[in-house]
Amino acid sequence: MKKENFFENKKILITGGAGFIGSNLAHILTSLNAHVTIVDSLIPEYGGNLFNIKGIEKQTALNISDVRDAYSMRYLVQGHELLFNLAGQTSHMDSMQDPFTDLEINSRSQLSILEACRKYNPDIKIIFASTRQIYGTPQYLPVDEKHPLQPVDVNGINKLSGEWYHLLYNNVYGIRSCVLRLTNTIGPRMRIKDARQTFLGIWIRLLLENKAFEVWGGEQLRDFTYVDDCVEAMLMAAADENVNGRVFNLGGDCAISLKNLAQMLVDVNGSGQFICREFPQDRKKIDIGDYYSDYSLIRKTLGWKPRIPLKESLKRTIDFYRENLEHYL
Amino acid sequence: MKKENFFENKKILITGGAGFIGSNLAHILTSLNAHVTIVDSLIPEYGGNLFNIKGIEKQTALNISDVRDAYSMRYLVQGHELLFNLAGQTSHMDSMQDPFTDLEINSRSQLSILEACRKYNPDIKIIFASTRQIYGTPQYLPVDEKHPLQPVDVNGINKLSGEWYHLLYNNVYGIRSCVLRLTNTIGPRMRIKDARQTFLGIWIRLLLENKAFEVWGGEQLRDFTYVDDCVEAMLMAAADENVNGRVFNLGGDCAISLKNLAQMLVDVNGSGQFICREFPQDRKKIDIGDYYSDYSLIRKTLGWKPRIPLKESLKRTIDFYRENLEHYL
Repeated sequence: MKKENFFENKKILITGGAGFIGSNLAHILTSLNAHVTIVDSLIPEYGGNLFNIKGIEKQTALNISDVRDAYSMRYLVQGHELLFNLAGQTSHMDSMQDPFTDLEINSRSQLSILEACRKYNPDIKIIFASTRQIYGTPQYLPVDEKHPLQPVDVNGINKLSGEWYHLLYNNVYGIRSCVLRLTNTIGPRMRIKDARQTFLGIWIRLLLENKAFEVWGGEQLRDFTYVDDCVEAMLMAAADENVNGRVFNLGGDCAISLKNLAQMLVDVNGSGQFICREFPQDRKKIDIGDYYSDYSLIRKTLGWKPRIPLKESLKRTIDFYRENLEHYL
Repeated sequence: MKKENFFENKKILITGGAGFIGSNLAHILTSLNAHVTIVDSLIPEYGGNLFNIKGIEKQTALNISDVRDAYSMRYLVQGHELLFNLAGQTSHMDSMQDPFTDLEINSRSQLSILEACRKYNPDIKIIFASTRQIYGTPQYLPVDEKHPLQPVDVNGINKLSGEWYHLLYNNVYGIRSCVLRLTNTIGPRMRIKDARQTFLGIWIRLLLENKAFEVWGGEQLRDFTYVDDCVEAMLMAAADENVNGRVFNLGGDCAISLKNLAQMLVDVNGSGQFICREFPQDRKKIDIGDYYSDYSLIRKTLGWKPRIPLKESLKRTIDFYRENLEHYL
């Protein structure tokens, strides 16, 4: 595989590297003999969890710091050839209740990381993890990259700024950056303590604790990317120079209603219960309705497609948490 | 006129009220017997100028403070029925050289103003001054509100966040907000000390000082709104409940190349010289090429259209500065 050669001995920085996607990425990169530095704030409400990087402690460097800490980031971006820029505040509700923290992390810190790269390491290449949230309520389905951008919450607005700063610094200053707009990503090492990273997290936790979980609404369609597929897309983008300054959707192998997803989860688990209830009022205002991605652009450009079917994704995820639940509570 | 009755005795706050558009608005509102409070930071590099509000000092309240001062804004938004939210950092080049200041003013402060309104005065109605800069390089002309948003500089990114926060707070919290995307606005009381607010400013200054002014490029098309027309649009939007949560372009009566504009300016002045030269490299990277607006949406919705022809706009502007040049140097 091309990318195995590509990543060998590469010096790579991952912000949010102890988080869900970042840690899965760190595991793969370590197996590819890259030199990985993990940056993570370990803020308890976010995705960072030291258990996520168990087994690769000796092959990676761990630096606990916050992307809002501009001097720390200024030091850390130096000497690295690749930056997987994944640190972010992901909770839509938190972004409404504390919009300034969301702005600082998802918008301002991105600018300061890019300024640090411009001044101290302009040769670095960046893969930035953006989100489908910036499209807002879909005007058509599946949603491609040309869909109008109309975020419906503070998180979406700030993620969009963060994304645009990357594209701008690519276009104006030549800081090579590629943006991937992620849909719901699932898999081992995600936060399941609550619904802050994904509603599926709290579903799985309750399921494994033999408690009924709640499905809000239930008819909304969603798509899901298994984390290994997501990591694969990031690696492909990192190893390709044609993606610089460009934006790509990731997606899943199917669109499924939340109610059917809940049933599939129960089936895969072998037991469990869920309750469908109406959307809470404050959530309804920022919900986007049906969403699923058109990922044909990255398929055409890089040959990427989701390889792990949804049911298998759920199985692997549940298997992981059945084994490791205590580390995620 | 409907709006005369509408504004009489209304309590109105104008951020950037000693600046170019804000002060013209304050003059008109005062003549309509509104109770106007002017907020301005008087930062020397921005548009605020106490001479701009000469003649209405006694009918208005002046509060010198910065929109970044959250506690000041928290106090000031209270007790007002309307907020014309015009304070901003307008220089594209400054936004690239100091992106954080631009972010603080054009993005973060907007969020804090809206949070203050949500908590302390949710019945206020806001007119927000946005900019054509957020469209980036036009993909078609004239540019309507459906044109993709692709800002090409830090200023455009942050203005867009500021705009979206307004729409979001309208949609989620019912803080009534209307966004006007301004094109080049010209007229008395604009900054002419340098090109920070508009290139036309420095042209006029040099013209009146009998010095040759520089036209960069020269072939780019632009449109221009006379400040009285811009103010008219703001008043119309403030007095209409159908515009809440919506975005409208303003525009000019014609599109003209910068070279022809320069010649028209010299003709109107009766004398003068200009030199066409190539774009400086750092400006070229963030220039948007040809731009002019489609303003048919606001025309249909509110009946607004630009009424002062470009030549007359230039004449009135030059007449004003010939009289008052010393106060703008």
